[in-house]
Amino acid sequence: MECDTPGVAELTDIIEIDDAADQRLDDFRDLTIADRRPDRPGGRGLVIAEGVVVVRRLLASPYPPRAVLGVRRKLDELATDLAGIGVPVYATSAKTMSDVVGFHLNRGVLAVASRAPAPSFDEIAGRSRVLAVLEGVNDHENLGALFRNAAALGVDGVLLGAGCADPLYRRSVRVSMGHVLRVPFAPVPWPEALGDLRRRAFHIAALTPRADAVALRDVRDAGYHRIALLLGSEGHGLSRAAIDAADSAVRIPMASGVDSLNVATAAAVAFYELTR
Amino acid sequence: MECDTPGVAELTDIIEIDDAADQRLDDFRDLTIADRRPDRPGGRGLVIAEGVVVVRRLLASPYPPRAVLGVRRKLDELATDLAGIGVPVYATSAKTMSDVVGFHLNRGVLAVASRAPAPSFDEIAGRSRVLAVLEGVNDHENLGALFRNAAALGVDGVLLGAGCADPLYRRSVRVSMGHVLRVPFAPVPWPEALGDLRRRAFHIAALTPRADAVALRDVRDAGYHRIALLLGSEGHGLSRAAIDAADSAVRIPMASGVDSLNVATAAAVAFYELTR
Repeated sequence: MECDTPGVAELTDIIEIDDAADQRLDDFRDLTIADRRPDRPGGRGLVIAEGVVVVRRLLASPYPPRAVLGVRRKLDELATDLAGIGVPVYATSAKTMSDVVGFHLNRGVLAVASRAPAPSFDEIAGRSRVLAVLEGVNDHENLGALFRNAAALGVDGVLLGAGCADPLYRRSVRVSMGHVLRVPFAPVPWPEALGDLRRRAFHIAALTPRADAVALRDVRDAGYHRIALLLGSEGHGLSRAAIDAADSAVRIPMASGVDSLNVATAAAVAFYELTR
Repeated sequence: MECDTPGVAELTDIIEIDDAADQRLDDFRDLTIADRRPDRPGGRGLVIAEGVVVVRRLLASPYPPRAVLGVRRKLDELATDLAGIGVPVYATSAKTMSDVVGFHLNRGVLAVASRAPAPSFDEIAGRSRVLAVLEGVNDHENLGALFRNAAALGVDGVLLGAGCADPLYRRSVRVSMGHVLRVPFAPVPWPEALGDLRRRAFHIAALTPRADAVALRDVRDAGYHRIALLLGSEGHGLSRAAIDAADSAVRIPMASGVDSLNVATAAAVAFYELTR
């Protein structure tokens, strides 16, 4: 840090807490089980951001922050992001932080936010050229990685069909590097949403390892104005209903004898090809 | 399984073991620490394959098997692969297996093999059109995922420059789905190997997020006969020496404000573009 950069204390009121039992830290308590919160709407936990980069993305997101907790050095790194946020910023030691969250947290700073209403299907579909549409992607890490790839490669939004995990679980947020907080997403009625997409002039392309599918590049070259890329889980793939509702089945050409790629990786390749 | 498929007992001599302390199972003992084996050449552990799919790949690989351990149902699935392998096949209970390996192993079957000499640089470079050349890829999961992607997308081999992890660590083998056992790889002198690649008419393309790099598609369109794709670690990227030794710097076009992709994912996108 340069010597003329202001520390967090000069920009924000910091509350020092030394006692891990302090109730003001309850939002940060026992994070390994905090994704289940029967006291919260829908029984789902708050949104947790870990580390400077992801905390910064949370503070710039539509999710309303509730509090920030960190060691002083990390809060200093976030000084300008924290200025005027209007929620408590707690400084403590690494030891107290571990005691509160329930494990050693080497990223040194956390922010917690409330959930926010998902944008509507119309809001997402109306402004998108390329959408990812997921079915059965129920692994939090794959889901997080998929959002990271969607953000990097310019996908405009993600629709969650049947059987998908919650993108706002802590592990998904972390693996996504906070990009689940930036890429618009919404759960959609399934498989009815596919009809809605077609009515909105999306070409619906189902990604599959099937040998008789069209090569990804050919779908790109067809020049569809709007594309909804349908992605299934690694284990079971897409349901028959989803494949039948698609306009085309597309594949990534692969070497023989190799399992399909991880779903987030396959998605990245397809996003790369379809977003330009 | 169809009713006329032979079980493993009809094709292979099976040794039943109930005692977790049996010394014949020592190769499978305490796998969470078994990657360090001071008693083995180089202080490195044996090659461990977990699960039916990866065990099958191990048995089809150049690595000489030493033994197989599993519950009867999984051994039955491998019956034809195990026929005549000439090393002990041990059957036991799930409980005894957990006691031996030190954790609950839900894949139900393990194979262990000795390491084998790496192919030479000349062997790999001589028969390859697209190579991945890694520097500082020291995360076992990223490395395993990268091999899986290399296998799926038709990369001919992987060269390991300075600072790379060991692809034969158990976790790399698992994340690669066993493809580290199929894709040829070798450690190479660093950065001298880059000169050797150029003398063999490889175009050396360094993958980087730098904005002034050439877009990946333009490198593909240049139609180089042989390409060596240089990949650095997610955290630090490629060293100055590696970038200077490359013929071109290439990038995956990315949305602004987004970190670079995970190294294995970026590699997948580049492999996809460069291998056809």
